[in-house]
Amino acid sequence: MQKIRIGIVGYGNLGKGVLSALEQQKDMELVAIFTRREPNSLGLKVKNVQKMDNLPNFVDKIDVMILCGGSATDLPKQSPEVLKYFNIVDSFDTHANIPEHFDTLDKIGKQNNTLGLLSAGWDPGLFSMARILFNSITPDGVDYTFWGKGVSQGHSDAIRRVEGVADAVQYTIPREASVSAVRSGICPTLYTKDKHLRECFVVLKEGADAQKVENEIKSMPNYFADYETIVHFISQQELKENHSTLPHGGFVFRSAKSVNNNKFLMEFNLSLDSNPEFTALVLVAYARAVFRLHSKGQTGAITVFDIPLSAISPLSPEEQRKKLL
Amino acid sequence: MQKIRIGIVGYGNLGKGVLSALEQQKDMELVAIFTRREPNSLGLKVKNVQKMDNLPNFVDKIDVMILCGGSATDLPKQSPEVLKYFNIVDSFDTHANIPEHFDTLDKIGKQNNTLGLLSAGWDPGLFSMARILFNSITPDGVDYTFWGKGVSQGHSDAIRRVEGVADAVQYTIPREASVSAVRSGICPTLYTKDKHLRECFVVLKEGADAQKVENEIKSMPNYFADYETIVHFISQQELKENHSTLPHGGFVFRSAKSVNNNKFLMEFNLSLDSNPEFTALVLVAYARAVFRLHSKGQTGAITVFDIPLSAISPLSPEEQRKKLL
Repeated sequence: MQKIRIGIVGYGNLGKGVLSALEQQKDMELVAIFTRREPNSLGLKVKNVQKMDNLPNFVDKIDVMILCGGSATDLPKQSPEVLKYFNIVDSFDTHANIPEHFDTLDKIGKQNNTLGLLSAGWDPGLFSMARILFNSITPDGVDYTFWGKGVSQGHSDAIRRVEGVADAVQYTIPREASVSAVRSGICPTLYTKDKHLRECFVVLKEGADAQKVENEIKSMPNYFADYETIVHFISQQELKENHSTLPHGGFVFRSAKSVNNNKFLMEFNLSLDSNPEFTALVLVAYARAVFRLHSKGQTGAITVFDIPLSAISPLSPEEQRKKLL
Repeated sequence: MQKIRIGIVGYGNLGKGVLSALEQQKDMELVAIFTRREPNSLGLKVKNVQKMDNLPNFVDKIDVMILCGGSATDLPKQSPEVLKYFNIVDSFDTHANIPEHFDTLDKIGKQNNTLGLLSAGWDPGLFSMARILFNSITPDGVDYTFWGKGVSQGHSDAIRRVEGVADAVQYTIPREASVSAVRSGICPTLYTKDKHLRECFVVLKEGADAQKVENEIKSMPNYFADYETIVHFISQQELKENHSTLPHGGFVFRSAKSVNNNKFLMEFNLSLDSNPEFTALVLVAYARAVFRLHSKGQTGAITVFDIPLSAISPLSPEEQRKKLL
């Protein structure tokens, strides 16, 4: 069997995760990693590290490119650019801009006979799939999404921008009482502060005023002002030892009822030791689907909503029905 | 907008559930219910109850038939027969015979230009989708499925066949300690008796020997012999008052790891006041997909694995991406 030939664009946490994830796939092979940095500087054991500029030279050598850049500045530029030459999978997660990103990719994919899957991962991604599944089955219900316990990179970055802060890690923590209330089926009304609390581990710069830093964090609009926020000051050493992994996860619930008032509670949840490694596994499974759908002639942009589950499985349809149905 | 025209074949608990489920769908309308009984005997408020023999007269009046018979004897005959004239959705759940049922329907659907979805519902169905999703994303892991707490019709029927039993209801109950062990991520080895216990509420016939009935239930091979089984003897009145609803549900877990030994726990669970009403909602949502896929030219047999989630949603693709992604 011909293996699916994969390229990785960007070598941060997610790119490293994809490299690891590919080791678990029998039907895929890594062709090259593309980076904006000096290829030799990555210290990789893998052979083929390429400068980003070399990317067009790999047309016909790579079936699907997995884009591992960030949603803020990388993907809005890279996804359309790479899609001119290759099928792609990205994890674009700036929710408000998804329709625009979709339209851009759809146009470019159709022009260039390529297929682009956007916004794969676990949220958006698997959590979105739980939402559309639950909503489609039960028209009369209420949705709840909780995130965590996990490290929010966006909130950690926001703390690091506060004057006097040397380093920081922020955990988003779902409130157990609220999760239990949802699970009980009572359909509680939950406000922002009811759903999550935010716990921050902060390393101060020398001479910084702890009270001032704490106040500034807690009053930060959008990020912290609407939440119960707990701030701990710790040493850089302690941060490194106890807060250097990137766990995450969360819950999607739908609490619904029939016309006869029978209640249904649906739940999907994830608990992940490593957010980037799990996201990478999702991207890799969906790269398989992109390869298969493109082979059947599909082009343009798609999301996880457009892909049948059979397309992400390494098993044959017969094996899928026998073992998993 | 033209509504999707639905027929119901069979009017037991599931057929009644589909009738209720259709009340919640804005894009569907019920055309007729087909029954083997005397149409007037059903006491229905709905107008169009038809004898089963009248079914072929509704070609061109119904887009999708939802088959609500049982898997033991009804569906193996009815699904192929009805598929000769109509697109169908069934909830065939005799696992060992799914490949054969698939092949039969695939042949008939392709010959008659119709599309048949088999084995929809929640298990097989939504639980199968969780299994294929979790397995496709994490190649290295262990699967666990727990059922309940809920009424098992098969086990209730088995008790009713015991001499001296007038009526019975059996609850399948997942063992909390085992569910907790799986959730903790330790990947326990669980034997049949570790996963579920079976609680039976039994009404004796007059003069029956309770001890003998209890022994016979507890030693019944396949059904009870391998489990911890609790037997309560109650009155018919009590059975009717406290055990006449059909709740069910369960959990699908996958406990997996990355090559770097980071652990991932995935969970999908359902808690349902009414098993037939929820199953009916699933069948109705998937009837929407069958209609759409057949409209695009698809024929033969399919399972939930072959259907993109976008096809079951009443929302437009743009709304899906905006609201649910």
